Amino acid sequence: MLRWLTAGESHGQALVGIIEGVPAGVTVGSAEIRTALARRRLGHGRGARMKFEQDEVRVLGGVRHGVTMGSPVAIEIGNSEWPKWEQVMAADPVGAGVLEIDAGTGDAREQARNKPLTTPRPGHADLVGMEKYHLSDARPVLERASARETATRVALGTVAAALLEQAAGVRLVSHVVSVGPVGTPEDAPRPGPDDVAALDADPIRSFHAETSAAMIAEIDDAKKAGDTLGGVVEVLAYGLPPGLGSYVHSDRRLDARLAGALMGIQAIKGVEVGDGFRTAARRGSAAHDEITRDADGRVRRRTNRAGGIEGGMSNGEVLAVRAALKPISTVPRALETIDVATGESATALHQRSDTCAAAPAAVVAEAMVALVLAEALMEKFGGDAISETARNVATYLDSIPETMK
Amino acid sequence: MLRWLTAGESHGQALVGIIEGVPAGVTVGSAEIRTALARRRLGHGRGARMKFEQDEVRVLGGVRHGVTMGSPVAIEIGNSEWPKWEQVMAADPVGAGVLEIDAGTGDAREQARNKPLTTPRPGHADLVGMEKYHLSDARPVLERASARETATRVALGTVAAALLEQAAGVRLVSHVVSVGPVGTPEDAPRPGPDDVAALDADPIRSFHAETSAAMIAEIDDAKKAGDTLGGVVEVLAYGLPPGLGSYVHSDRRLDARLAGALMGIQAIKGVEVGDGFRTAARRGSAAHDEITRDADGRVRRRTNRAGGIEGGMSNGEVLAVRAALKPISTVPRALETIDVATGESATALHQRSDTCAAAPAAVVAEAMVALVLAEALMEKFGGDAISETARNVATYLDSIPETMK
Amino acid sequence: MLRWLTAGESHGQALVGIIEGVPAGVTVGSAEIRTALARRRLGHGRGARMKFEQDEVRVLGGVRHGVTMGSPVAIEIGNSEWPKWEQVMAADPVGAGVLEIDAGTGDAREQARNKPLTTPRPGHADLVGMEKYHLSDARPVLERASARETATRVALGTVAAALLEQAAGVRLVSHVVSVGPVGTPEDAPRPGPDDVAALDADPIRSFHAETSAAMIAEIDDAKKAGDTLGGVVEVLAYGLPPGLGSYVHSDRRLDARLAGALMGIQAIKGVEVGDGFRTAARRGSAAHDEITRDADGRVRRRTNRAGGIEGGMSNGEVLAVRAALKPISTVPRALETIDVATGESATALHQRSDTCAAAPAAVVAEAMVALVLAEALMEKFGGDAISETARNVATYLDSIPETMK
Amino acid sequence: MLRWLTAGESHGQALVGIIEGVPAGVTVGSAEIRTALARRRLGHGRGARMKFEQDEVRVLGGVRHGVTMGSPVAIEIGNSEWPKWEQVMAADPVGAGVLEIDAGTGDAREQARNKPLTTPRPGHADLVGMEKYHLSDARPVLERASARETATRVALGTVAAALLEQAAGVRLVSHVVSVGPVGTPEDAPRPGPDDVAALDADPIRSFHAETSAAMIAEIDDAKKAGDTLGGVVEVLAYGLPPGLGSYVHSDRRLDARLAGALMGIQAIKGVEVGDGFRTAARRGSAAHDEITRDADGRVRRRTNRAGGIEGGMSNGEVLAVRAALKPISTVPRALETIDVATGESATALHQRSDTCAAAPAAVVAEAMVALVLAEALMEKFGGDAISETARNVATYLDSIPETMK
Repeated sequence: MLRWLTAGESHGQALVGIIEGVPAGVTVGSAEIRTALARRRLGHGRGARMKFEQDEVRVLGGVRHGVTMGSPVAIEIGNSEWPKWEQVMAADPVGAGVLEIDAGTGDAREQARNKPLTTPRPGHADLVGMEKYHLSDARPVLERASARETATRVALGTVAAALLEQAAGVRLVSHVVSVGPVGTPEDAPRPGPDDVAALDADPIRSFHAETSAAMIAEIDDAKKAGDTLGGVVEVLAYGLPPGLGSYVHSDRRLDARLAGALMGIQAIKGVEVGDGFRTAARRGSAAHDEITRDADGRVRRRTNRAGGIEGGMSNGEVLAVRAALKPISTVPRALETIDVATGESATALHQRSDTCAAAPAAVVAEAMVALVLAEALMEKFGGDAISETARNVATYLDSIPETMK
Repeated sequence: MLRWLTAGESHGQALVGIIEGVPAGVTVGSAEIRTALARRRLGHGRGARMKFEQDEVRVLGGVRHGVTMGSPVAIEIGNSEWPKWEQVMAADPVGAGVLEIDAGTGDAREQARNKPLTTPRPGHADLVGMEKYHLSDARPVLERASARETATRVALGTVAAALLEQAAGVRLVSHVVSVGPVGTPEDAPRPGPDDVAALDADPIRSFHAETSAAMIAEIDDAKKAGDTLGGVVEVLAYGLPPGLGSYVHSDRRLDARLAGALMGIQAIKGVEVGDGFRTAARRGSAAHDEITRDADGRVRRRTNRAGGIEGGMSNGEVLAVRAALKPISTVPRALETIDVATGESATALHQRSDTCAAAPAAVVAEAMVALVLAEALMEKFGGDAISETARNVATYLDSIPETMK
Repeated sequence: MLRWLTAGESHGQALVGIIEGVPAGVTVGSAEIRTALARRRLGHGRGARMKFEQDEVRVLGGVRHGVTMGSPVAIEIGNSEWPKWEQVMAADPVGAGVLEIDAGTGDAREQARNKPLTTPRPGHADLVGMEKYHLSDARPVLERASARETATRVALGTVAAALLEQAAGVRLVSHVVSVGPVGTPEDAPRPGPDDVAALDADPIRSFHAETSAAMIAEIDDAKKAGDTLGGVVEVLAYGLPPGLGSYVHSDRRLDARLAGALMGIQAIKGVEVGDGFRTAARRGSAAHDEITRDADGRVRRRTNRAGGIEGGMSNGEVLAVRAALKPISTVPRALETIDVATGESATALHQRSDTCAAAPAAVVAEAMVALVLAEALMEKFGGDAISETARNVATYLDSIPETMK
Repeated sequence: MLRWLTAGESHGQALVGIIEGVPAGVTVGSAEIRTALARRRLGHGRGARMKFEQDEVRVLGGVRHGVTMGSPVAIEIGNSEWPKWEQVMAADPVGAGVLEIDAGTGDAREQARNKPLTTPRPGHADLVGMEKYHLSDARPVLERASARETATRVALGTVAAALLEQAAGVRLVSHVVSVGPVGTPEDAPRPGPDDVAALDADPIRSFHAETSAAMIAEIDDAKKAGDTLGGVVEVLAYGLPPGLGSYVHSDRRLDARLAGALMGIQAIKGVEVGDGFRTAARRGSAAHDEITRDADGRVRRRTNRAGGIEGGMSNGEVLAVRAALKPISTVPRALETIDVATGESATALHQRSDTCAAAPAAVVAEAMVALVLAEALMEKFGGDAISETARNVATYLDSIPETMK
């Protein structure tokens, strides 16, 4: 059973994630984690923070000499900006003077950082978070609700992805399908697992050069207009064995878990498996995937409208899931809100200058899919060493009758 | 903590569900459960089974004299067709002759019912289920993967809905938004909690008379063409307190849980919160809900594009979630498959004659939303008696500062 | 992942249990379940109810023709006394008259059964249950807190035991080690898995004839004195593979889970693994199990003080756990309490006439151990068909280096 | 819902723990955590490591200016000895030479630290851990199975204890009841929550001066004899509201959870609630706690044999649980084992020189009890701010009828 927790604030000392249930013998190191985190910082339309944000990775437990030990894996991601925040975000009480003093230094920023945030931003957790946690300052809310937290998920997802590949040859890839109204043509080729470098090189993680250019233009235009954009991202998983997830209980369905994991990413408002909403508008005769044999005599679906999932289980085809990202909530053209200190109308704080977060959202979605698939894989196959899990996968695949495979 | 399990096969002796964690003092009875189950059987385009299917409800535990006791609530739904299936689906071994004999009686159906099903239907769990559970007969797969199982969810959802209403005044309503390509206009009024009877009376659970007629025509047309249809359903929850769910950990987000629960319904391929995929195509300045005060001085969002959820939490507005249903997989115009007994090409079995399951899917979706919301409510407010939970809700709402409410 | 829920009241219509996660292909039927339930009713010192209590077993789901299907297994145990209770314990409201009327019939019992119970019994859940669930009548508390509920655990434990034996050759046995002050000699031989019939035949489930006689005498003496007795029971598991449970996280330790499961049985106040409390009084040089090779060259512990668990994992030796049972709380010599209707002192109700429940407690403890071990087995080995789980067990055992086995 | 994970190896860079579900507004800081960790290092009979081991605490998330924010709390405990281990326990691969080279420096220890450990110690996780995780070196096993890991539990327990006290006035205390054969008299007074300083000052965390001296003499004697000792520890919780835990499902029983948590501590082999095993030897008339009113008219139990738990719920009396600790497994008088590199007989490695770990075990047990109680408290009362939880506790207590309290 794979399970994980994350902690840490956006401007805190460090983010940290623990993943428990990883078998021994998985090869993974801080270099892969750093690479994944760097990929999360990419993307045309991202603001200045991404440039200076350095992810200082330390693997605190569970891995020795590049190989997991079976114990929980803990990954810490330091905050390179911590010196600027260490008073404001200190865990322990600080003298009031420390936060208030600005006279003399002439530096007002320190004071500003600690000032209570009382104008909650529409589209964010700010207002409800204050109500729920009985806070008069939105700082604790936005510090944790921030998408900065997804860095831990990407780090843990790296471990899950290594597990999937080493146990079962499963490989993932993520890309941006649309930015605002600019979408990739339905019949455009989809990226395979060997296209990751090409996607990393594309400014908006698109696999379609022409669309990529149009997306970038759209982002530039939105930015000029003081506005923001959302989009749709897709994650594909290649090489999944059939039978992950189950129809026997609703919460064991692989599609249910994937939907929960993707919708649990900040700013995601919609999730699809395979053709998703498009399939709801079709008739049945054009909505399913007939079962046939390919040239090599292997059982295959003639199409993959189901996105690799039937009956809540992986069916051996390519897994395809999509997530719809709303535009960034912190809109430069400031939105109306109230000041909770006074109850009066106010203008929402605008702190960040990203225009579009679709590219990083794809990377985060990929990490979440990796975590869900690794969890489902471990449930079906068990194993405490990667060699044991891999052996269980292989003997299962062997045991499927010839007439079915 | 609310948790639940269900069991039972489509043609088995009975379905049964247990829900644990329900506080004492909730008023609920078998009459409400029967009403909810009857609602699940409605809908233009459903086949003959719905007519003869009688849901024989027994509340086996947890409720006494119409009031919950705090102990787990168990609901059994008997299968009125059981006498026809008691040999074929017997839990205990039966003499081989019992299943084979047809001579003399001239009745071949008994034998047919027990014959191994070896031509898995595309779009169903059949083929993967046989691979996963190492079965040479699809019978055990389709018996459990069948949507008949959703009757238990609807039954348990009735308990959850009673809890929500009695603890916090929360009321739910579900309706069909589209059938195949026929959709309700974006600006059509949405049903409120007092419109349930009207929706029950509509043949397709639509709240828009004109669209309803078009939907029915579409279903009739598809049926004539030997085809099937899907659609989109919506669930609305009125009266939710702000602060259910949380941004502090991804799996505690209310939207994540709702998405998982909805995607865990058979045939669902897409899920949206609020404007969902439509919001991904907008710019930020037109995608969020500004915070303002209404005529009564209450803090309100000017719009509800977010569907009542911000930062993974209910925000006090109407909760709105949608699910996309693929067309029924058992298409009269039979689909290509393989016979796993021989490995040869074959035509998929066609057993059922429903044309469109959108209306019941709406009812099932409502039940799942009730279960998720009740779980989130109990997590935030605790309480072992409904009076205790209700008191905790009320004092929480009171404690929100005037400037925020 | 194996998980289960139970429901039902002591005098309700039926008890019901659902276990989810059982692989397909496990051979189990209602006959085995009935046998296990009958074993739970045995034991010198039990009262009249056990004689007339008939367990009417129906397997409602998950099993077909004596073999599990992979879907949740649901077991219902009907209450043969239900006709006497159907008004008093009705799920739906009954007319007040139904419960009050006694005139004419001259039968006052019906009324008595429904009378609020307001003198909570010391040692029972009664008083706290009323506080927690805000009840003015202890009826709902004692109906669920009653040990009658353990029948569902024994039923589900039968499925778990079948899984363990068929996947890994694991076999369980339970016996009574002491009754009140009468204990089995430390050096008495322990029963093996082939001794179950002998234990069933012993009036107090003792494996030591001399002690058995002394236990029976003690029970008779206590009964004469209007008193009750507790005891200590032991469960042994033979054939466990090494490596169930884990040291990597505290809640994954097999001993932790076993302790939780055993302490979760009504009236259990203490739990030991191996030599337990006795080992705390020894010095280290006499407290551990040296590792050596036996005559066949197999790695063995020279002793088994650890009870088959080291580092929170099964170590390949016989698993041995014990549980201490307090004397039955309903003492004929009535205990002092208060009447919560008045707040005045009162004498606790005395309803039952069992003197000692050690024999059934052993059977229930065995069921709980079976459930925990089956859960741990499935976690380590996975598998959706019993053949897959068995294959994964076998290849794991093969993979252990010769130098370690 | 409170949940937590820990990670980190004994000689790794740091231990880390995350606890999720802590309400906002709990006052807690690194000073309290350091104090608790220092308490864990106390105790006559502990070896040299405790003296140089410095717990470098960093609260990485969830707390700001000494108050929790509602987000997960992460605590890191640095390893002050890390510089000596940073090559041997490096997460990333190191050049082989780094670990092998000793020539020139003359320092052979580095090499020794990295040498595969192939003589598993009886009583430890070593041998089974290697089998389970398919390892040829016990290093990864002992690094995680080590009791060093309990430091994270103590750190997280500090947060749980603060929550308990601030929400409900609950206070905990732990002490050593016996060391080897030396036990505290049954009628000795038990420590109250104000006696913590006195217990900290006692060399063996005993509350009975005479027994403390005898315990110390026993430890000194065992040490001289090259042997080790175990003991029994007790945790008491004062001020618990009635009704934590529940009888309605076995895994919700408070005693079940406490037993699981205590047995999940390294080296614990037995657990008791209240009089535990002693109660199994008594007759019913002397085994329960009669319910009466005290001089102030409050409902009280005349005795507390049940240890504050009836029906699996806290009953308002003092909670009392005990755990039996086996003697330290690393016995100076070396035990027989096998060398798994060769399969030959060998002598188990002896690394550590503690003689008795009872005092720290008491502190760890207290932390585990705090975690379980805090979890049960949050389940019953909910609340996202400590003020909300405290309010829910208070109104619940108020709502209990006068006749019951």
